[in-house]
Amino acid sequence: MLKFRKHSSKKLGLPQGTLIHVGDKYSEGTKVQQIQYTKNNTRQISVESVSECSKSLDESSVFWLQVIGIHDPKIIQQIGDSFDISNLTLEEVMNTNQHPKIEEFQNYLYVNTRTYYFDKESDKARYDNISIILGKNFVITFQEKENNLFESIQNRINDKNSLLRKEKNDYLFCTILDTIVDHYFPTLERIEEKIEKIESNVSSSDKKTQYEIYQLRQEMTVFSKILRPQREFLSMLLHSDSGLIEAKTSRNIHDVYEHVIHLLETLDLNRENLTGLHDLYLSTISNRMNEVMKMLAIIASLFIPITFVAGVYGMNFQHMPELSSPIAYPAVLVGMAVTTISLFFYFKKKKWV
Amino acid sequence: MLKFRKHSSKKLGLPQGTLIHVGDKYSEGTKVQQIQYTKNNTRQISVESVSECSKSLDESSVFWLQVIGIHDPKIIQQIGDSFDISNLTLEEVMNTNQHPKIEEFQNYLYVNTRTYYFDKESDKARYDNISIILGKNFVITFQEKENNLFESIQNRINDKNSLLRKEKNDYLFCTILDTIVDHYFPTLERIEEKIEKIESNVSSSDKKTQYEIYQLRQEMTVFSKILRPQREFLSMLLHSDSGLIEAKTSRNIHDVYEHVIHLLETLDLNRENLTGLHDLYLSTISNRMNEVMKMLAIIASLFIPITFVAGVYGMNFQHMPELSSPIAYPAVLVGMAVTTISLFFYFKKKKWV
Amino acid sequence: MLKFRKHSSKKLGLPQGTLIHVGDKYSEGTKVQQIQYTKNNTRQISVESVSECSKSLDESSVFWLQVIGIHDPKIIQQIGDSFDISNLTLEEVMNTNQHPKIEEFQNYLYVNTRTYYFDKESDKARYDNISIILGKNFVITFQEKENNLFESIQNRINDKNSLLRKEKNDYLFCTILDTIVDHYFPTLERIEEKIEKIESNVSSSDKKTQYEIYQLRQEMTVFSKILRPQREFLSMLLHSDSGLIEAKTSRNIHDVYEHVIHLLETLDLNRENLTGLHDLYLSTISNRMNEVMKMLAIIASLFIPITFVAGVYGMNFQHMPELSSPIAYPAVLVGMAVTTISLFFYFKKKKWV
Amino acid sequence: MLKFRKHSSKKLGLPQGTLIHVGDKYSEGTKVQQIQYTKNNTRQISVESVSECSKSLDESSVFWLQVIGIHDPKIIQQIGDSFDISNLTLEEVMNTNQHPKIEEFQNYLYVNTRTYYFDKESDKARYDNISIILGKNFVITFQEKENNLFESIQNRINDKNSLLRKEKNDYLFCTILDTIVDHYFPTLERIEEKIEKIESNVSSSDKKTQYEIYQLRQEMTVFSKILRPQREFLSMLLHSDSGLIEAKTSRNIHDVYEHVIHLLETLDLNRENLTGLHDLYLSTISNRMNEVMKMLAIIASLFIPITFVAGVYGMNFQHMPELSSPIAYPAVLVGMAVTTISLFFYFKKKKWV
Amino acid sequence: MLKFRKHSSKKLGLPQGTLIHVGDKYSEGTKVQQIQYTKNNTRQISVESVSECSKSLDESSVFWLQVIGIHDPKIIQQIGDSFDISNLTLEEVMNTNQHPKIEEFQNYLYVNTRTYYFDKESDKARYDNISIILGKNFVITFQEKENNLFESIQNRINDKNSLLRKEKNDYLFCTILDTIVDHYFPTLERIEEKIEKIESNVSSSDKKTQYEIYQLRQEMTVFSKILRPQREFLSMLLHSDSGLIEAKTSRNIHDVYEHVIHLLETLDLNRENLTGLHDLYLSTISNRMNEVMKMLAIIASLFIPITFVAGVYGMNFQHMPELSSPIAYPAVLVGMAVTTISLFFYFKKKKWV
Repeated sequence: MLKFRKHSSKKLGLPQGTLIHVGDKYSEGTKVQQIQYTKNNTRQISVESVSECSKSLDESSVFWLQVIGIHDPKIIQQIGDSFDISNLTLEEVMNTNQHPKIEEFQNYLYVNTRTYYFDKESDKARYDNISIILGKNFVITFQEKENNLFESIQNRINDKNSLLRKEKNDYLFCTILDTIVDHYFPTLERIEEKIEKIESNVSSSDKKTQYEIYQLRQEMTVFSKILRPQREFLSMLLHSDSGLIEAKTSRNIHDVYEHVIHLLETLDLNRENLTGLHDLYLSTISNRMNEVMKMLAIIASLFIPITFVAGVYGMNFQHMPELSSPIAYPAVLVGMAVTTISLFFYFKKKKWV
Repeated sequence: MLKFRKHSSKKLGLPQGTLIHVGDKYSEGTKVQQIQYTKNNTRQISVESVSECSKSLDESSVFWLQVIGIHDPKIIQQIGDSFDISNLTLEEVMNTNQHPKIEEFQNYLYVNTRTYYFDKESDKARYDNISIILGKNFVITFQEKENNLFESIQNRINDKNSLLRKEKNDYLFCTILDTIVDHYFPTLERIEEKIEKIESNVSSSDKKTQYEIYQLRQEMTVFSKILRPQREFLSMLLHSDSGLIEAKTSRNIHDVYEHVIHLLETLDLNRENLTGLHDLYLSTISNRMNEVMKMLAIIASLFIPITFVAGVYGMNFQHMPELSSPIAYPAVLVGMAVTTISLFFYFKKKKWV
Repeated sequence: MLKFRKHSSKKLGLPQGTLIHVGDKYSEGTKVQQIQYTKNNTRQISVESVSECSKSLDESSVFWLQVIGIHDPKIIQQIGDSFDISNLTLEEVMNTNQHPKIEEFQNYLYVNTRTYYFDKESDKARYDNISIILGKNFVITFQEKENNLFESIQNRINDKNSLLRKEKNDYLFCTILDTIVDHYFPTLERIEEKIEKIESNVSSSDKKTQYEIYQLRQEMTVFSKILRPQREFLSMLLHSDSGLIEAKTSRNIHDVYEHVIHLLETLDLNRENLTGLHDLYLSTISNRMNEVMKMLAIIASLFIPITFVAGVYGMNFQHMPELSSPIAYPAVLVGMAVTTISLFFYFKKKKWV
Repeated sequence: MLKFRKHSSKKLGLPQGTLIHVGDKYSEGTKVQQIQYTKNNTRQISVESVSECSKSLDESSVFWLQVIGIHDPKIIQQIGDSFDISNLTLEEVMNTNQHPKIEEFQNYLYVNTRTYYFDKESDKARYDNISIILGKNFVITFQEKENNLFESIQNRINDKNSLLRKEKNDYLFCTILDTIVDHYFPTLERIEEKIEKIESNVSSSDKKTQYEIYQLRQEMTVFSKILRPQREFLSMLLHSDSGLIEAKTSRNIHDVYEHVIHLLETLDLNRENLTGLHDLYLSTISNRMNEVMKMLAIIASLFIPITFVAGVYGMNFQHMPELSSPIAYPAVLVGMAVTTISLFFYFKKKKWV
Repeated sequence: MLKFRKHSSKKLGLPQGTLIHVGDKYSEGTKVQQIQYTKNNTRQISVESVSECSKSLDESSVFWLQVIGIHDPKIIQQIGDSFDISNLTLEEVMNTNQHPKIEEFQNYLYVNTRTYYFDKESDKARYDNISIILGKNFVITFQEKENNLFESIQNRINDKNSLLRKEKNDYLFCTILDTIVDHYFPTLERIEEKIEKIESNVSSSDKKTQYEIYQLRQEMTVFSKILRPQREFLSMLLHSDSGLIEAKTSRNIHDVYEHVIHLLETLDLNRENLTGLHDLYLSTISNRMNEVMKMLAIIASLFIPITFVAGVYGMNFQHMPELSSPIAYPAVLVGMAVTTISLFFYFKKKKWV
């Protein structure tokens, strides 16, 4: 089971806006990386003092602060202070159980989203929480667990011919969203592979199949719970008038939005497919069981009457005239055969055999 | 079963606005506590005469009247009169079966809500009704049962550095809502623990599991019935233009609203999870049963034919030539073995074994 | 089964607005009662000539015409003519199968609603149709079956201190609606009692329970079909601008509206509860059945092999060397015991016992 | 099964607006009847040349063209030309598989609807397609199959005191719609009768009941598929501003609309009822089966152990000391009785008997 | 299973707007055909250099570019450049897994849709992706797989009397949509034929039926997933104000829209039908099984007691006084018969036989 809850009751009785980390701690310390680029230059430094870094913000360059490790309230507070971010937002940045959403503030957009992938070792679905803040001239991403999600973006930043270098920070923001959504596709493919495996196993009526279907369905439910709010907030983003996103970037966000819709549609289709497969599986099992019970019913019904006859002539009464007749034995045998064969044809007529 | 109804038919035939207590009586007498604070001072007194206390209302301080025990129409009427509250509202304050809702009046906001928690002793879900009235310069809370829900708020009022002391009564109102919603989280956690317990028991196909699933589902239904109207009324509160809530407090109410949405989403997810577990449980039970019946079917089908043969040679006919043959006995034994083994392999081929 | 249809095909081929009584006839003749009151006086007379009574209408007093018995087209037509009511409305007044609704006409509001109660003798749900017409200065109620629904209103009219006496006919109209809705609560309580009874019977797996669940579900469906349109038309009434309802009465209608919502919510909750109980019931029955079959399977599987062995040594072959051995009998008995015990432990290991 | 499709693939590759008859052909040739009436006169003639008849149109009289037989493109085209009807409309008039809908054109309203009735001989549900065109000063109805649906309207036209004679063609149009909707009521009654029959048969667990439920459900699905679009198009008609329908006729159309809603509500109720009955039926069958299997299980379990004992003492070992004891036989009999009775009481205690 | 996904993860990490072919490759090379016609002339040429062909665009003639084979990014890019089409659109043109949709750009409309048909050989449902771009004075269609879908349109273009020749390119665009939608009808008919086949097989309780139902349901799900977005985008097209579609063509698009709605309604009806058939099938199977088990239960229950009696008198005790009585044997036989017959009538009374 994927749990959305983790230690959220830690916050009981605390005032709103209290910074407290909710969720598992994955990284030791906090790694803050500052990437700043213009059409011509790109600079990437590891930040030591977060309260200083906001000073290098300027209108002409794109500024991206990558924060890995969000369990330390002090650092988060420092970032919040230097970039003028509300404590209510910071509280949510530190809560990795937040469900995906967007919030518009006066001077920034706050987006909370999630990756969703199959862990390579356990083949179980996992998700990581990612918070993105888009300000006037900066983008900040927060994540607890380090992963190579943003590697391709960094490569494109380093490539001076890429479109990314020519655009503003709203384009970077959109590229980050696009990258996160792109990474859902392999997950969807893995799900489809699992469904195909189940489909090919369905007729073997393996007992484990039931559990696999159950687990896959859970994973798909969680997946759709992650995707659905994203569809909504991307739609909101398209109609937002915050001024933080330029008109021409809107087209690209629309593209991301279409991808999410495509993912949801395909997920829905797979879900109906799985439901169909489940029915098929249950009915295969029940068919097999029926066959076995039918076989028992036929055999038992055929033999019970004649076994009784054999029992009768096995009784030890002294006065059983039939016993001495020389044709009695063959006659009884023939009688038994006739009974059985008649019964059999009666069953056949009833289409039970 | 959680009952929403209690003695509500007591009111049959009475005109609207008649004050009558609907629900169980938990407290002896009525305890009224008046908390009044400004940035610098805080005063907490036990009120003797409710009709007097409204005199100490003033613009500069926050005034909170806590009423514990709502079964006495006289006291409720006095409070209503001195704070200018409609009788239709007072009628609902005294009805602990009201479902959560908000109502806007000319001079105040009336909110009816519910706590939801697991009783520590019986581990059964319980709820208490809480009414909150937000006026121009006062907040009144009504509850029948005393609990320590508001302890943390009182602590914060006593702490002169807390934000609460610096804000108006709309902030107090929001803090009360926030506290109530915060207390749903441990309930949700308890539900998730129960689901996990059921999940780990599912394969043991314990008979009690069925009842536990039933009960948990009921509890979740009641929970969502409590949460759902709150989502709606918080949304209404956000778009209300009563003038009782200041713009900057709206952000905090939005935060409470997000929590309720998060609770509902997680509850939904758990519900689907439970449904999945239920299916799994039913199919585990049915699998186990199938195994037992299959075993019977196989054993019976293998032995019935050869038992018949033994019966035949146990008959007492005088003329049964086979009986005197010295090889008849071993021949029959071999025949029986061959029949059984053939049948067994036939079953194997059919994949019934 | 509650039938919505009764003789409605009587109307086939007739033009719209033809007065014809659809439904059962409960009362002999038609009883028309005229109640007229002001703050100071109240007058209640039995009307002989319906075409005359409209003459006593005046602006200063509240006029209520109670019509009991709606099967006589002539009288209904006379009332319609003297109060200026459209034939399309009269047609619906006479049709007791109409589903609850509101219709606004130029000079009056037409409301069709239903009582819903458990018949005391048969304990079966019944409903009666009630039509209410609110005009400028009159209220007319139509019903076929006499009942004591409006007794409490008449008492309040006779009590010169009651609020009712001080208000206009729109308040009377609202009080009538409130009374009808109030009478749904005992029905809901009866439903909840029935559910509790079913709940306590569920584990006894009584066969009748299935039918009781079926019947209760039907009753709840009909109940919700009666309530749902009322929620809608009360909401319409709240936003209507017909001018027939004064602003201050609106608050009372809102109160009635809230009651209907509360009823619907509680009904929904009970419905889900009943569904849960049904599942529990079905699974209890299936569990019991499984136990019995398992017992058979175990006993049969344990005895079938050893009964076969007994059959073998009951055969009458002359050459069966074992038969003469003195230890053969105890050896076979021991062998049988060993077989049975091994099988039993095998079953135990498989957790079938 | 009711088929919506018939030969519709005939149209593959043809341009839009090509006239082709889709559906079964019921009538030989085409019968066109022209009915024209004013307050004082009425004239009914059989039209020979459709291209001529439009000449008798005038403002003062109501003109109704009844076309029976719509399989001949030539005649339909002629009508279309002389009344100025678009080819897209004519194409749909000729397609009897069109689902009910309304379409507004500049100079006319096109309504496509369906009758739904039980065929008297086969007791199976059938539907006929009817197209109605309301123009400025004419009404045209198209149908393939002749039926006596409009007989009552013709009678009213011939009755010079009827309201119909005093009104315009929009009132005729509304009367036609009303007549079609009125004829749904007997169908609904027939459905309710069938449900009652199923209800009374449910406990007899007749095998045919399953098929009857299936068939009735299909019929109800088709019925609601016919009704649902009518609800929508009548609502559209009410809010249409085509100018073809006068304000006072609107009230009558609203009445028809209410009937359709009433039909849909009742149909829904019956559907839920049928679902409940189906559950009841399935559980009755399963109960009966359980009883039979339980009986087998009890009998078999009681006799299997003692039959084994009898088998043991039927073995032919020479050294079986018990056999010679004079009390052995009664002792064994008593032992068997004790075993059986104990087992029986054990079953009783377990509540299996 | 129909897969929506194919190699879509190829795009992982690539920037938006990168041209990459997603889906299977069906055609060798790319075939581009240019059809240009006016009222008087028509010209059809095979295009060699796509970057040249846009030069022949002019206001007076209709220009249709048919592109078969969309796997070559270079050619697609050239077309995009010469017709001024955004790279985001081109990316989607090359992705054959896109779900149907419409997108409005400043200078063109982009429509993505799908054919859906049963493959003649395998009788399995297949779909092909088709992209259509409607510009000011051109229409471009893209498809990977060559088929004869547009043959009838080409014939109409060659026929100088056809309406198509007289209209603008928006009419051509509408005709293309109409042709695609028309080709869904044979698919629907094939589905209905399959349902009929299943219906006639239902009572034979063939095991394969379960799988056929499963497969057909999948196919219908995919079909509705293809149709549903088309309903939406046709509705959007009707209300679009792009200026690319003239008012009079709107009527024709509305016609196509109605066809899609008709298809969806009929599909829904068939789906409910199939669900009903599935229930019927399952209950037929279960009935048959019940019959067999009942037969076993009756036979076994009748014979088990008397077989036991026979066993008792087969015991070899020396002191069994009954054995020597001359009437014992007939008495026992009569006793057995009486027992069996009584049991049988008991079963009959219980309605088990």
